Amino acid sequence: MYEIGVVYRNIQRADADVAAKLGALGSATVHEAMGRTGLLQPYMRPIYTGARASGTAVTVLLQPGDNWMLHVAAEQIRPGDVVVAGVTAESTDGYFGDLLATSFQARGAHALIIDAGVRDVGVLTEMNFPVWSKAISAKGTVKATLGSVNIPVVCAGALVTPGDVVVADDDGVVVVPAAAAQAVLDKAAARESNEAEKRAKLASGVLGLDMYNMRGPLEQAGLRYKD
Amino acid sequence: MYEIGVVYRNIQRADADVAAKLGALGSATVHEAMGRTGLLQPYMRPIYTGARASGTAVTVLLQPGDNWMLHVAAEQIRPGDVVVAGVTAESTDGYFGDLLATSFQARGAHALIIDAGVRDVGVLTEMNFPVWSKAISAKGTVKATLGSVNIPVVCAGALVTPGDVVVADDDGVVVVPAAAAQAVLDKAAARESNEAEKRAKLASGVLGLDMYNMRGPLEQAGLRYKD
Amino acid sequence: MYEIGVVYRNIQRADADVAAKLGALGSATVHEAMGRTGLLQPYMRPIYTGARASGTAVTVLLQPGDNWMLHVAAEQIRPGDVVVAGVTAESTDGYFGDLLATSFQARGAHALIIDAGVRDVGVLTEMNFPVWSKAISAKGTVKATLGSVNIPVVCAGALVTPGDVVVADDDGVVVVPAAAAQAVLDKAAARESNEAEKRAKLASGVLGLDMYNMRGPLEQAGLRYKD
Amino acid sequence: MYEIGVVYRNIQRADADVAAKLGALGSATVHEAMGRTGLLQPYMRPIYTGARASGTAVTVLLQPGDNWMLHVAAEQIRPGDVVVAGVTAESTDGYFGDLLATSFQARGAHALIIDAGVRDVGVLTEMNFPVWSKAISAKGTVKATLGSVNIPVVCAGALVTPGDVVVADDDGVVVVPAAAAQAVLDKAAARESNEAEKRAKLASGVLGLDMYNMRGPLEQAGLRYKD
Amino acid sequence: MYEIGVVYRNIQRADADVAAKLGALGSATVHEAMGRTGLLQPYMRPIYTGARASGTAVTVLLQPGDNWMLHVAAEQIRPGDVVVAGVTAESTDGYFGDLLATSFQARGAHALIIDAGVRDVGVLTEMNFPVWSKAISAKGTVKATLGSVNIPVVCAGALVTPGDVVVADDDGVVVVPAAAAQAVLDKAAARESNEAEKRAKLASGVLGLDMYNMRGPLEQAGLRYKD
Amino acid sequence: MYEIGVVYRNIQRADADVAAKLGALGSATVHEAMGRTGLLQPYMRPIYTGARASGTAVTVLLQPGDNWMLHVAAEQIRPGDVVVAGVTAESTDGYFGDLLATSFQARGAHALIIDAGVRDVGVLTEMNFPVWSKAISAKGTVKATLGSVNIPVVCAGALVTPGDVVVADDDGVVVVPAAAAQAVLDKAAARESNEAEKRAKLASGVLGLDMYNMRGPLEQAGLRYKD
Repeated sequence: MYEIGVVYRNIQRADADVAAKLGALGSATVHEAMGRTGLLQPYMRPIYTGARASGTAVTVLLQPGDNWMLHVAAEQIRPGDVVVAGVTAESTDGYFGDLLATSFQARGAHALIIDAGVRDVGVLTEMNFPVWSKAISAKGTVKATLGSVNIPVVCAGALVTPGDVVVADDDGVVVVPAAAAQAVLDKAAARESNEAEKRAKLASGVLGLDMYNMRGPLEQAGLRYKD
Repeated sequence: MYEIGVVYRNIQRADADVAAKLGALGSATVHEAMGRTGLLQPYMRPIYTGARASGTAVTVLLQPGDNWMLHVAAEQIRPGDVVVAGVTAESTDGYFGDLLATSFQARGAHALIIDAGVRDVGVLTEMNFPVWSKAISAKGTVKATLGSVNIPVVCAGALVTPGDVVVADDDGVVVVPAAAAQAVLDKAAARESNEAEKRAKLASGVLGLDMYNMRGPLEQAGLRYKD
Repeated sequence: MYEIGVVYRNIQRADADVAAKLGALGSATVHEAMGRTGLLQPYMRPIYTGARASGTAVTVLLQPGDNWMLHVAAEQIRPGDVVVAGVTAESTDGYFGDLLATSFQARGAHALIIDAGVRDVGVLTEMNFPVWSKAISAKGTVKATLGSVNIPVVCAGALVTPGDVVVADDDGVVVVPAAAAQAVLDKAAARESNEAEKRAKLASGVLGLDMYNMRGPLEQAGLRYKD
Repeated sequence: MYEIGVVYRNIQRADADVAAKLGALGSATVHEAMGRTGLLQPYMRPIYTGARASGTAVTVLLQPGDNWMLHVAAEQIRPGDVVVAGVTAESTDGYFGDLLATSFQARGAHALIIDAGVRDVGVLTEMNFPVWSKAISAKGTVKATLGSVNIPVVCAGALVTPGDVVVADDDGVVVVPAAAAQAVLDKAAARESNEAEKRAKLASGVLGLDMYNMRGPLEQAGLRYKD
Repeated sequence: MYEIGVVYRNIQRADADVAAKLGALGSATVHEAMGRTGLLQPYMRPIYTGARASGTAVTVLLQPGDNWMLHVAAEQIRPGDVVVAGVTAESTDGYFGDLLATSFQARGAHALIIDAGVRDVGVLTEMNFPVWSKAISAKGTVKATLGSVNIPVVCAGALVTPGDVVVADDDGVVVVPAAAAQAVLDKAAARESNEAEKRAKLASGVLGLDMYNMRGPLEQAGLRYKD
Repeated sequence: MYEIGVVYRNIQRADADVAAKLGALGSATVHEAMGRTGLLQPYMRPIYTGARASGTAVTVLLQPGDNWMLHVAAEQIRPGDVVVAGVTAESTDGYFGDLLATSFQARGAHALIIDAGVRDVGVLTEMNFPVWSKAISAKGTVKATLGSVNIPVVCAGALVTPGDVVVADDDGVVVVPAAAAQAVLDKAAARESNEAEKRAKLASGVLGLDMYNMRGPLEQAGLRYKD
């Protein structure tokens, strides 16, 4: 049950520097560091190839076919935020276009994550304003019914709390609770640190079977080789 | 980000009587009383026609293709509970069948709500153990990876906190926070109280246009009649 | 492009008797008689098993998440009509429930065909008021934006003109233009007339290969039998 | 790559008695006994509740929108067969209706499994001729292009070889290779034999945690209980 | 019900200049100017990024798995046309490839809009021949069954009449009736004219809340701010 | 029914030169030469535009949410192979990323075809390692349950036998049995040989109606022209 018709102005944002570092590590690494949780459904796709963004979440709850609250949310954006929008019913309409993107960008937003549709994607691409969405649609929306801003929202299957770190790239979108951001960063960085070495080994022809010592466990599990 | 590998034993359950009364009102009425929020996605369907259940939520977080935590959850069930299960990735496997249903029923569970698949639906129907699920599938699961029990989980797009009231019927599944249950019941009951009168009027041929005084607003909105 | 905000009061309904006879023949037979056209997409399903209806179309264009025009449409219903509702965007919300059904039934409507969701399906089943829909959902709608009544609408991929014959059953929904209704009836009835004889032959073990003289054409097409 | 335009008349059918016994055990048990393989995708659903069938596979490869080969297949049916039909492209058309069902039933077929649509489902239900399909659709098909009968076909994600055992019920459809049928039956029967005892224990309140000795492995995996 | 087996040679095309100007304004702006109608379903996507086209509709009705009528349609193309193809059943086959594209382009067609699949997309991209489709598929089609050319067809949920203006870009596809084209152009141009000014204001940090005077209505609707 | 827990080391690969030539002809031409069979479902899409690959199949059967067998498969790769992976249940998880790609590439693999998800698509694109998949997802997988390597697997609706030729490009993925590869190549090459001539004719304005002599058959089928 969502609290409807309310805007929370003071939210506790995760540390901006931690958010940036998590963004640099990417969604797959961060998702692993979180114990394989925090990922939005894979139907969320960037509107252009190579899009990459991270920041702190300003959340929006939208009513179906109504983008009024995105205008309300714009005022709450601070530089480095990522707006995350859920809708109270399934919808593929285009809630967001070039004018709102101009406003969001002017306020310092890094991206929009929306569990619905978006339009003007050609202009958004030129503006380098990345959006991860469920659909692209020219279908416009009305401004008639209240939702909320900066309440916890479910977006594409994940709970997003205002101030959480959002990491989004070609592989998807991950949400990290503000309180866990530093710990996740530490784990993710550790995970990343030996990736270069692993990659070099694999590139030289060493098999994962050997590098990860899998042959024993596979044999124990009963794997048989036949000629 | 979910807390993985943990079972919370003491949860604050909503009042059982309130849960029962909300159940009697049905998902559509309760959803309206909550300001049209709290509804799980409509892909959640009962496994048999006429299924109806309500109760307090015991929540489970499952790993894909793994039903281990449903066994762990069974121990936490008290009479009047409804088990609500989310999965950390999309899945249609059959995580639940007649044996688990026997155990859940013996523990006093009223129903299972699972954002995945279920099997043995013929036997479950004979047992009168209702399940709302995304799929029906004979596909079995392993017991290898930990999830959690009684943490807040997202199930079919809605956040469910342990102890929340769950109302499920042919129209879908609604979740009411424990703290709001009494207030929602009051609103829902008020809403219901004049339904009989409205129904009688409409059955006698009175139009909603007149009963709800819509003609003025429609005219103001610009509606034109043509012959 | 739809004409928005208008209600046409005088529509040319197909002959009620022809509509009833087409309904008795069923959607599959009528669809064949129409040269395999006129069928709505197969995602349109009846809310209860065995539902069957036919009648003349009163059409409604709805805005997403808004059921206002269904109330407007109720006034235009005459006994024997079937209400056909399209929406200007994809939606699974529940636009129609037991109160509107009571009103529609009181006005003499035979059924509702809606390219969206419906709720209170348990009560609708008890009322014997059949609905063919894309979804079942407790999600309610607002009454804020105008659509239209009795304009041509696209519903589940088919164009429906007010007054058309609608035939709906377990196999789906077919729309027959009013002007073609008698001719389609004649063809469909002719098609049906020798079905009993065919069925008896097939039941006795005669093969379709022989009854339809398919062996020659199959051989000509190059079919080979191997042992 | 399918061999097109060919009908194999002599196929090695699995033992009829074994097929019947596998059918009695049900798709979920058989699927488990096969190491959790052999299951068709869960979008395959029976056209009526409680449908149950088993038998030996006569396979059909259909071309999209064309049901010619179902007539050719009818001649190859022997009592106890289940016809399994794949299509060379995705399709939801209604390839099969009451006339073909009459013919199939007269030939002794137990069921049809089709990775496409079916129609006349009301009559098929009255006839007790079960069908598992991807869709129900009144959309008819032509008879113009050759496919094949009794070649190995992929149906709903599973490879089906002529003569395989097919087990279908409310939980889905499983295919057992003829050569493995007896061994799978033995395993499935063993699996089933102690189900009654397990069910009794669980019904008496014993937990799966104890019955399956899961507490140790869960602790080892790191499960923590909190109050 | 479609008229099958007919080709209309003389159609009333909308003014080419108006079509070009509507195309320059883009699908989102035109869709808004039409009262938010006329949009095809958002599953219709361009085969390459940045595709943009507009023109007058030549319509085609295809039978499933059969592209014969696209060859018939080629002869009816005049420079500036956009071919719009519907199918009488759901299909993802590849009805159109580089040879047909060469022919269409030679005839002066600007684009193809098809509620099905297309292939040779690499070559089509090199040719700069844009297609909006539901799928990309190498699956070929036959040439066996008649459809029609230049009858009104439903394509991806929208009714398209021969001669209508079609506007297609990254945001989707909109259809404007020929008779309304000039009026829609006027509205769309007016809408566009003050976009630059709005964009400049928003870019300077002015909020939509202020620019659109939303604060009053939001307060009236009950929006509350909390710290 | 799959054989689980086995790795076949010696497989009969199709001729590498034939595989390369089939790859050069492309999926659409090869699919036609195979009598329009052998195509994977069109939901299989390349992770980057312009991806093209061909080679001989090394097959993998994966368990849902588990990528262990991809490591086992790496050892079986020989230069020129394409790894084809099916899963025993529907899944969109990311089974494959940059480390496995480095290993596969080091072993000489040309591509991966996987009926599930993939991640690190940005790095894979830089590496020029093409993947055709059902989804892109950062969701990681475990290494706990055995599947198999080099058994026949169903991948996206098509049966793939180890050693088959795989042809993949922007239009999709086609599989050619090793034994038929040379014959299919001959047919495909013949088909291709007169494409240039056809294209030139069509580009000069000749209609397919005339080039393919369709006017007679269309008239016979009953096509009528109206003005």
